[in-house]
Amino acid sequence: MQSTSPDVERPALPAVVRRFHEALPPDLVITDPQQLRTYECDGLTSHRVVPAVVVLPETAEQVQQVVRICAEHRVPFVARGSGTGLSGGALPHADGVLLVTSKMRRILEIDLANERAVVEPGVINLDVTRAVAAQGYYFAPDPSSQQVCSVGGNVAENSGGAHCLKYGFTTNHILGLEVVTPDGEIVQLGGPAREAPGYDLLGAFIGSEGTLGVVTKITVRLLRKPEAVQTLLAGFASTDEAGAAVSAIIADGVTPAAIEMMDALAIEAAEQAVQCGYPPGAGAVLVVELDGPAAEVEHTFAEVKRHCREHGAFEIRVAADDHDRAMIWKGRKSAFAAVGRISPDYIVQDGVIPRTALPEVLGRIARLSAETGVRVANVFHAGDGNLHPLVLFDDAEPGAGERAEAVSGAILDLCIEHGGSITGEHGVGADKVKYMGRMFTADDLDTMQRVRCAFDPVGICNPGKIFPTPRLCGEVPGPRRGVHPLTEAGLADQF
Amino acid sequence: MQSTSPDVERPALPAVVRRFHEALPPDLVITDPQQLRTYECDGLTSHRVVPAVVVLPETAEQVQQVVRICAEHRVPFVARGSGTGLSGGALPHADGVLLVTSKMRRILEIDLANERAVVEPGVINLDVTRAVAAQGYYFAPDPSSQQVCSVGGNVAENSGGAHCLKYGFTTNHILGLEVVTPDGEIVQLGGPAREAPGYDLLGAFIGSEGTLGVVTKITVRLLRKPEAVQTLLAGFASTDEAGAAVSAIIADGVTPAAIEMMDALAIEAAEQAVQCGYPPGAGAVLVVELDGPAAEVEHTFAEVKRHCREHGAFEIRVAADDHDRAMIWKGRKSAFAAVGRISPDYIVQDGVIPRTALPEVLGRIARLSAETGVRVANVFHAGDGNLHPLVLFDDAEPGAGERAEAVSGAILDLCIEHGGSITGEHGVGADKVKYMGRMFTADDLDTMQRVRCAFDPVGICNPGKIFPTPRLCGEVPGPRRGVHPLTEAGLADQF
Repeated sequence: MQSTSPDVERPALPAVVRRFHEALPPDLVITDPQQLRTYECDGLTSHRVVPAVVVLPETAEQVQQVVRICAEHRVPFVARGSGTGLSGGALPHADGVLLVTSKMRRILEIDLANERAVVEPGVINLDVTRAVAAQGYYFAPDPSSQQVCSVGGNVAENSGGAHCLKYGFTTNHILGLEVVTPDGEIVQLGGPAREAPGYDLLGAFIGSEGTLGVVTKITVRLLRKPEAVQTLLAGFASTDEAGAAVSAIIADGVTPAAIEMMDALAIEAAEQAVQCGYPPGAGAVLVVELDGPAAEVEHTFAEVKRHCREHGAFEIRVAADDHDRAMIWKGRKSAFAAVGRISPDYIVQDGVIPRTALPEVLGRIARLSAETGVRVANVFHAGDGNLHPLVLFDDAEPGAGERAEAVSGAILDLCIEHGGSITGEHGVGADKVKYMGRMFTADDLDTMQRVRCAFDPVGICNPGKIFPTPRLCGEVPGPRRGVHPLTEAGLADQF
Repeated sequence: MQSTSPDVERPALPAVVRRFHEALPPDLVITDPQQLRTYECDGLTSHRVVPAVVVLPETAEQVQQVVRICAEHRVPFVARGSGTGLSGGALPHADGVLLVTSKMRRILEIDLANERAVVEPGVINLDVTRAVAAQGYYFAPDPSSQQVCSVGGNVAENSGGAHCLKYGFTTNHILGLEVVTPDGEIVQLGGPAREAPGYDLLGAFIGSEGTLGVVTKITVRLLRKPEAVQTLLAGFASTDEAGAAVSAIIADGVTPAAIEMMDALAIEAAEQAVQCGYPPGAGAVLVVELDGPAAEVEHTFAEVKRHCREHGAFEIRVAADDHDRAMIWKGRKSAFAAVGRISPDYIVQDGVIPRTALPEVLGRIARLSAETGVRVANVFHAGDGNLHPLVLFDDAEPGAGERAEAVSGAILDLCIEHGGSITGEHGVGADKVKYMGRMFTADDLDTMQRVRCAFDPVGICNPGKIFPTPRLCGEVPGPRRGVHPLTEAGLADQF
């Protein structure tokens, strides 16, 4: 799965390790094979590569030293936060350095008056909220892994979460970054002010999956906790009915904090795993959460209930308190893991379609499943059309993995066909490089590669990720440099 | 003010004009000096340059042809929408082509179910809203110039407006772009889905002030019109009191659609110009607008009134209907032009500070004004700390322009000193290149220049804008390519 940068020199590794030992305290450099093995994969466990060396820098200056040493020796490096990513974005390089940020866990500054905080990249997502919750603030991005994932990883993958329908992705909550570029410069992207002049490289860096540098400081936006939150669980006979209710809610101008949908198979799995008590016999459930000023939530919640009822909800359960709310969410949040109860193996897919294409695409997935005999459980952020089909298989059965892989790929093709995307929030990483060519033209990809080469011409920064045809930057077709008018006739057919 | 790209060949111009005549209908190519003069400036009228030739393409393919011809002949080009920009971003190049998009005014697609539309770059901002208003939708970015400015120009400058406190800048309302790159490729950035894989070059392109290519199609996000809108005008004795009210409102967790402040001199100017009937004797007024579900607005509006009263508002006027609301906004929206009534000349400044620094910075501006005798009227988006000081002078008085320029620059220094920005929404353009070095380190600027060079290595796409030291891309310090381990000792001090 992984491509080796042709420019990389394996013999440089012993020299690099020697330099690391000179630059860093001994316990921050790991070369013991047994210990290295614990870093062989991230959340995409189907891909495993043991790194040549692991470093655990504690400061931005140490990150800079590590990157400079790698740059001098042309040794590839991969940054890793908590390793919870689902696309293999932090998959190590066999001939390279894994730069783990888990020792960079300081919250450096909290400025509530201006609603922002500065944190190091290894800080756990939920710890940001914990640090400001008593004062009534929180950090909005809430991936399911928020108890363990790092803010640096959220930045790399532009992580979403159940509430990004209303609050947006990580990119909407980052004000500025300090970054070590692949050649070892420390630069500032964005800044404390809401808008900065020049190019928005902050936005380009966020979601670049660790290919443009290593983040060392993050200025995050803090939000006031909403005055009121209301959550309901609605049971429908089918995903079509539930989908129609979603469309009606959105068309009414309501933006819930979250609208999540689960289909019958996903409900079954969650029920077996955590006994969440979802409505028996439901072909689909919706979890709808509203937040905001109490007066707004109360009014809008009534509207949401009406739309659910009008579109066939046979049971609507409203969370009376935080415990109820937690139980409703428990079923949804445990769905991925729960699928392990009903199938020995599964692929977590992640794709996006326009919300209006939901019924059509779900119908096509059901047919695909019926035709191939591969079971698919659907869990998704229905409000913004972000599907998470779970494709079930048993690896012990010959050919089952390949069939599941084929169905999983066919679902991405459906997303592309409907004008959507091959990933909503998990990223391309090592897993989806092969699909990039289906979504983008060669010119589109070359434009991205040129930017990558502007940051990393040698190709040492997380090589083999995102792009389907990794190659030396000299091979990326550069912008045409034009020709002298006198010779233009002879070259005209190049244009 | 303008720098000539050293790589540009003036003798190529006649050949370029000949090629334009071959490629485009005759009325789309302007070379008549009289007609060319009408394009000599945008909204920054202190900077004027007559372009060598103007083209008015009608389609993306014609834009591509124009750009390819420029690229082949290494002739610089500048794209221009309606020419309302205030930083000279569309200032022409004397030896170059001005590519005007005013004939690209088609709304190509409206998809209300998915809340989006596809428009050409010359479409007037307000015409997007007009096309969908009957169905209850609107396009949120609302620069003061929205009756004449183009969506393409909004994309180039990442335009804001009074309501970006709640709704964000143009970048928050663009889903995808079709762009002609400086070498004449047509590429897609972003797309209809909310999140796309790969780098967020959509975000980097938006606000790049025409230096990365020419936009030819724009997929915009449409919002549902809010159920209710409430607007109030509050009079305070001083900007300090008004500022304290703003802080109290925000600290309470309220996000108004807009909070605008005007000081005494700005009020005086507006009053003379449009008789808006603002409270007599006020040292500052706030315009606060709330929108959303009626229940929310009603509840929150009461809170806002309370905060205003508690912080010294001596008069609060609530708009009873759309006419009243229009009158309240009329004073604010006409403020820039109105200043012309009280001063023959003025500079519209645009800077950002953290909201909490408002009292301190306004105090410093007042002192600066007292010390220099240069009058400054302050109009600003108080909610997000975006100042628009209007620096008044009389060009007939010797040295007055220079003194005003000095005060205007000193205000930007204040913004930088307080952790803000040298532009909130007007851009750097030709006007503020000289301030970029005060806000960014050389490494920060080089990182941006590398991206520019990735798109435009010859430097023909809106050269002389944004960057303080325009130079050939070969001169931008590239990322260090590392050295062979054997030679590292000799080069170590470079790192």
